Amino acid sequence: MKDCKCRIVVDAMGGDYAPLNVVLGAVAAVEENADIDVILIGQKDEIMKVLKENNKSFKEENIVNASEIIDMKDTPTSAIKEKRDSSISIGTKLVREGKAEAFVSAGNSGAVMAAATLIMGRLKGVSRPTIGATMPTEKGSVCTVYDVGASVDSKPNHLMEYALLGSIYSKEMLNISNPTVGLLSVGEEDSKGNELTFATSKLLKEAPINFYGNVEGRDIMKGTTDIVVCDGFVGNIVLKLAESFLGFLKTKIRNYADKGILNKLKALIVKYTLKDALSDIDYQSYGGVPLLGVNGICIIGHGSSSVLAIKNMIFKAKEMCDKELIHKFNQALEEYGKSK
Amino acid sequence: MKDCKCRIVVDAMGGDYAPLNVVLGAVAAVEENADIDVILIGQKDEIMKVLKENNKSFKEENIVNASEIIDMKDTPTSAIKEKRDSSISIGTKLVREGKAEAFVSAGNSGAVMAAATLIMGRLKGVSRPTIGATMPTEKGSVCTVYDVGASVDSKPNHLMEYALLGSIYSKEMLNISNPTVGLLSVGEEDSKGNELTFATSKLLKEAPINFYGNVEGRDIMKGTTDIVVCDGFVGNIVLKLAESFLGFLKTKIRNYADKGILNKLKALIVKYTLKDALSDIDYQSYGGVPLLGVNGICIIGHGSSSVLAIKNMIFKAKEMCDKELIHKFNQALEEYGKSK
Repeated sequence: MKDCKCRIVVDAMGGDYAPLNVVLGAVAAVEENADIDVILIGQKDEIMKVLKENNKSFKEENIVNASEIIDMKDTPTSAIKEKRDSSISIGTKLVREGKAEAFVSAGNSGAVMAAATLIMGRLKGVSRPTIGATMPTEKGSVCTVYDVGASVDSKPNHLMEYALLGSIYSKEMLNISNPTVGLLSVGEEDSKGNELTFATSKLLKEAPINFYGNVEGRDIMKGTTDIVVCDGFVGNIVLKLAESFLGFLKTKIRNYADKGILNKLKALIVKYTLKDALSDIDYQSYGGVPLLGVNGICIIGHGSSSVLAIKNMIFKAKEMCDKELIHKFNQALEEYGKSK
Repeated sequence: MKDCKCRIVVDAMGGDYAPLNVVLGAVAAVEENADIDVILIGQKDEIMKVLKENNKSFKEENIVNASEIIDMKDTPTSAIKEKRDSSISIGTKLVREGKAEAFVSAGNSGAVMAAATLIMGRLKGVSRPTIGATMPTEKGSVCTVYDVGASVDSKPNHLMEYALLGSIYSKEMLNISNPTVGLLSVGEEDSKGNELTFATSKLLKEAPINFYGNVEGRDIMKGTTDIVVCDGFVGNIVLKLAESFLGFLKTKIRNYADKGILNKLKALIVKYTLKDALSDIDYQSYGGVPLLGVNGICIIGHGSSSVLAIKNMIFKAKEMCDKELIHKFNQALEEYGKSK
């Protein structure tokens, strides 16, 4: 692990509770780890106001002003082009110019992806950056699904890139020594699938990854493989369906509780027991997800990110930086490019 | 409702527990409803043996011999071509020749779909038959997802056909007066989606259905719409992922129970409470799913179908027959064809 000075630009204006949660999250990160060099970017007076109101201090030379705000209603690509003085545009530019190693934002995720791709640029050998979602499994391990919505209508070589980048990420960041990669399909057999999986399967068999073969929808939460690759359209639906399951369960238990005092009591036991039994599904502590394939570290957080989530996003960026992920991605992409 | 004589051909050799469960299911159906005319098709001596061993009687003239068996290892299309004396081939042929109205099987579902499509034939105006999966929702209603695997690489007109047939099915069989149809995508807005959804959305807006617009993965179990249409590849993954949730939950609760006697007690309460709270998710009682778009009624059951599931499949075929579903499909397809 390199003992580098990692400069992390944090988008103070991004998220439903910005700048409050972001500023407090950044302060907490620096308080916990003095080695982290955080640059807060956004409307400086707003940032100063939050610090003052909450009795917190932050190095003033590390606060960079950005007059414009890209909000949730903005169309990603045009916002990047038009709002050049936004925290997202300036933040990604700092990474591009080598003035920082990472950009962290809980803002308009489409705009962050667009800015990272257009301003920071793609790694050589990457056609489309990707976002993975880490899902809990029966085994207690996690299964990371790529892509979950960075793009749609993915082509075979895109899925190959997801597998390559995802394998390095799982190895370095999730400590899985030789991560298995499954290709999401409608049957385990090679003969089951669609045009995309047939063509992708051939590429994955020859790629320098630990390819398992086809997996099905049920294999994700079973934990059959460490990584699952699929078209971003499919992955996005998979992620949102999986996330809705707990809500479904809660509603069913609430309806059950409404049917009498004994039911209410049983429902209460169920609620607390499930909270315990499913404690490894703690979305908040995960913080954010990295956008892989861009030329720099980029962590995208949920709009509703808490102070803890922001802090964790900063720590994740720091870890990716210390572990030289970008360098390792570049090495793997170069080797793969030569082998073709 | 027409008071028709509905002749239902039941594949005695289909399913993991065939012919036992199938024969007993058929006997149970006839015992419960004398109006149902069931034709058992399969190896006659095997069928007679089950009847004798279980002390059951069945009209012998309604047992049709089929010497060959298509099993789970057979490749669907070639099995249909090669095993012409199989229960699946002869059964679908009886429907084609007008000697029966419905075919019911818990056998190799690929082979049943192939036989129904090739031998019974498609309805005029249908390019691809489809299978829907009925999913439970927070609201207590059901959401039927088409297609869940009858085909992959669906085209916009296929999704349109799924919506048209599915709407009639929901209205007639699930008593939903004006079923809403959602198009599965990666965002609610019209601008979110992939090539398939953009083109399909245009067709659905002009089709004689109650089109809601785009829905996301989370909307299925929320019950946002009564019907959701998508490519069969996506639908199959959605179905298998959703089915795996309960298994995931059970494993998590079992692991929790293993951690001590108090945990075991709480887990037991959770188990019984969830069984009650989720009682509307009773896959077995649903029995089978219809293959829509073929020229006759075809119900496909799970390989592990119980006696009750087989009986319910027969009742579903009878209901579809009584409600003249095929006639109503034809009417709607004809009207839609004229309107284009």
